[in-house]
Amino acid sequence: MNIYLAEFIGTALMILLGNGVVANVVLKGTKGNNGGWISITTAWALAVFVGVVVAGPYSGAHLNPIVTLGLAIGKGFNWELVPFYMLAQLAGAMTGSFLVWVMYKDHFDATEDPGLKAAPFATAPAIRNKASNLVSEIIGTFVLIFVIFYFTDASMGTKENTTPIGLGSLGAIPVAFLVWVIGLALGGTTGYAINPARDLGPRIIHALIPMKGKGSSDWDYAWIPIIGPIAGATLAAVAYLFMHK
Amino acid sequence: MNIYLAEFIGTALMILLGNGVVANVVLKGTKGNNGGWISITTAWALAVFVGVVVAGPYSGAHLNPIVTLGLAIGKGFNWELVPFYMLAQLAGAMTGSFLVWVMYKDHFDATEDPGLKAAPFATAPAIRNKASNLVSEIIGTFVLIFVIFYFTDASMGTKENTTPIGLGSLGAIPVAFLVWVIGLALGGTTGYAINPARDLGPRIIHALIPMKGKGSSDWDYAWIPIIGPIAGATLAAVAYLFMHK
Amino acid sequence: MNIYLAEFIGTALMILLGNGVVANVVLKGTKGNNGGWISITTAWALAVFVGVVVAGPYSGAHLNPIVTLGLAIGKGFNWELVPFYMLAQLAGAMTGSFLVWVMYKDHFDATEDPGLKAAPFATAPAIRNKASNLVSEIIGTFVLIFVIFYFTDASMGTKENTTPIGLGSLGAIPVAFLVWVIGLALGGTTGYAINPARDLGPRIIHALIPMKGKGSSDWDYAWIPIIGPIAGATLAAVAYLFMHK
Amino acid sequence: MNIYLAEFIGTALMILLGNGVVANVVLKGTKGNNGGWISITTAWALAVFVGVVVAGPYSGAHLNPIVTLGLAIGKGFNWELVPFYMLAQLAGAMTGSFLVWVMYKDHFDATEDPGLKAAPFATAPAIRNKASNLVSEIIGTFVLIFVIFYFTDASMGTKENTTPIGLGSLGAIPVAFLVWVIGLALGGTTGYAINPARDLGPRIIHALIPMKGKGSSDWDYAWIPIIGPIAGATLAAVAYLFMHK
Repeated sequence: MNIYLAEFIGTALMILLGNGVVANVVLKGTKGNNGGWISITTAWALAVFVGVVVAGPYSGAHLNPIVTLGLAIGKGFNWELVPFYMLAQLAGAMTGSFLVWVMYKDHFDATEDPGLKAAPFATAPAIRNKASNLVSEIIGTFVLIFVIFYFTDASMGTKENTTPIGLGSLGAIPVAFLVWVIGLALGGTTGYAINPARDLGPRIIHALIPMKGKGSSDWDYAWIPIIGPIAGATLAAVAYLFMHK
Repeated sequence: MNIYLAEFIGTALMILLGNGVVANVVLKGTKGNNGGWISITTAWALAVFVGVVVAGPYSGAHLNPIVTLGLAIGKGFNWELVPFYMLAQLAGAMTGSFLVWVMYKDHFDATEDPGLKAAPFATAPAIRNKASNLVSEIIGTFVLIFVIFYFTDASMGTKENTTPIGLGSLGAIPVAFLVWVIGLALGGTTGYAINPARDLGPRIIHALIPMKGKGSSDWDYAWIPIIGPIAGATLAAVAYLFMHK
Repeated sequence: MNIYLAEFIGTALMILLGNGVVANVVLKGTKGNNGGWISITTAWALAVFVGVVVAGPYSGAHLNPIVTLGLAIGKGFNWELVPFYMLAQLAGAMTGSFLVWVMYKDHFDATEDPGLKAAPFATAPAIRNKASNLVSEIIGTFVLIFVIFYFTDASMGTKENTTPIGLGSLGAIPVAFLVWVIGLALGGTTGYAINPARDLGPRIIHALIPMKGKGSSDWDYAWIPIIGPIAGATLAAVAYLFMHK
Repeated sequence: MNIYLAEFIGTALMILLGNGVVANVVLKGTKGNNGGWISITTAWALAVFVGVVVAGPYSGAHLNPIVTLGLAIGKGFNWELVPFYMLAQLAGAMTGSFLVWVMYKDHFDATEDPGLKAAPFATAPAIRNKASNLVSEIIGTFVLIFVIFYFTDASMGTKENTTPIGLGSLGAIPVAFLVWVIGLALGGTTGYAINPARDLGPRIIHALIPMKGKGSSDWDYAWIPIIGPIAGATLAAVAYLFMHK
């Protein structure tokens, strides 16, 4: 499978499953309604697991522009591939998000609150405060990228060095555990975007679709889940390089 | 152990455990009453794990007519075995479902709502809309079968190629994780049948048993958890073949 | 480590952790109060994991007289060791249960309902009906023992055949998953004793300790979590032997 | 990476994630608010997993002065390194705790109860009774250290004997499971400090930071999560040595 197709499919599956659980927990009348943060974080962890398993052997499974960036800075991933990986991830996130809307359409229609209707798309902060929210995304993404470097020491490029650098299928369970704990521990403030494609792609879909009673797509906030992760990943890569060379 | 017996036993265990947790969560007076969607999805994932571990080394562990169909289309599973695998799965699902009724009989009797009495048997949609419900089952099954193809690249037929193609015991934990996240993320609309035997077998048992205060077995809906999974699995197999050949 | 000491310690740890979570969930004022069936079943699964890891390399880790019985009937475990294994398990269960009381003493004192005070010791049925309760324990134990036979095909006696037959340390995670799903799916009626030592040992401790406001130790029910597991394990061993030779 | 730096970073990550989930569950307005003991214990288990994965290959990953002490007594860890490991752990715990405050600052400000504001720092007993609380910490730490000895039989020092003795990366999942069940089963009374650095470091941070409406740092209680774990670890090491030599 083509590396960009792998990134596209892996990210689409991850977002379908990750945003799917948010729909299941927040929308009216679903079977998982009101299932709590434990349901959301468990499913997001497993969504990452699925994306990594599927894309791992082909593209290395970044699924996140910030992982791509961090691996380029800290682990020598080929810079020429970076923009195409990112585009594939964004397109995948948009596709997965669109499918969540298709699947839960009756429940979107049954839900009245525009905030709840938007929740299965992009992230939104619990307390709106740009400085704090940015710090939250920086810390969350720092932990994601910094710890991933340690997993990748063991699990990357094992397939005769022909597999592109990435999380790889060997790292699927550790990566899922990492995302699980980031959600539980560091997701309480901004909802742990920690991935610009995961936030921007669904936000674009929210803006485009003709959903009844749709509220704002909150573009005012949209830069934080982009800049925060970039800053966090850069700090993580720098810290890792500083300590290991 | 005979391959059909293995499919029968693996499916029976899976349904006993999977429908057992539904009984525990929805029926009156049980110890797990009101345990929420997280309990149901966790136990269903583990129920699949148990079925795969038991049947894996003997039949490959399909446990689902749609897995059998998908593997025949996409991975070369012997078409001659297909109808017998499917019959064994249906018989297993009926047996497991019957045992749930035997085990929770006092709690079925204590529960008044016929809808709750039926929930531990077949699936029912949260919002009844045939088009949407069919789409839900198609998407859920597509994800199941499509991702399973990637697991099977690594885990099938490893026992000196004498084990029939299937999920196999090596894939039990990944498959359980996959079913877990499908339940959490994509189960909120129709209850994720994603397996015709899992739905039809228990529905037949519901129709046959002399349960007090029994309501409708909802045959009007019964075709959706059959046609949806067939369509989803076919799409998944076609998509996989298109991308990998 | 001596094989009987290993069984004693493994069972004591398992009961301390397994009955500890019940204390944490049901007793007044604890941090885990009202944590639900998902907490109880998760911790019991992990309690079994710990017991198996500790005792596995030394005694094989049965931790349950019915596992010992099932392995003697179905897998050739030495009958001469059977009574001593069982005694070690009973003594371990008593010790673990006593430690739960020591640890949670202030919370036992703060709890008024004698039924809740007894819950962290022996099991009690949700709906008292001897025939149904017996059937529940038979089905739960049948699943436990029957599936364990399939794990043990892969994981037993691997340490140069000098390790006694048992669950072994290789099987700790699968066994934990199995106990998790039995609890979630089949524990809703009688609380899944599925182990005579797990029930009788703590019941003896409940009868002996000078707990304030202590209610009945419910000896009338005590035979069901003994006879049910014996019957279920025997059926499982017979079924396994019938199908595999 | 330097061994002390590894202990510092591993402990900082563990405390950031472990105390982060407490902030998420107890502080006002967070997305995980009121998520229950299952959320807290799951995330703490995964926090330990992350710390062990990161520090394992470099320092062995003790992350806890009592693990260091126990390994020195029971497994021959070099006594000369002990004080430096402990200092690194304390500094790491302080750093991780400070980051929790930075990240959740708006939610600390929004929360009024000084007890809830203190909960994401040090532990506090559910029922204050020094003798019982000490016993709880002794039992919890005994189980932690005693069981770790059995994991380490299999997983320590495997990297050509050049890795310092410790939990090691091979043991990350078993150790996480162990911490999970200790939290669920034995954390109900005192909140399972079972680690003096985990308690003292954050307590110092609580005392130092200028948090609005801050209550007492409860120094009166501070010796229990230090002396209890020391006693529990010593007993565990003695018991292990007694049985295995």
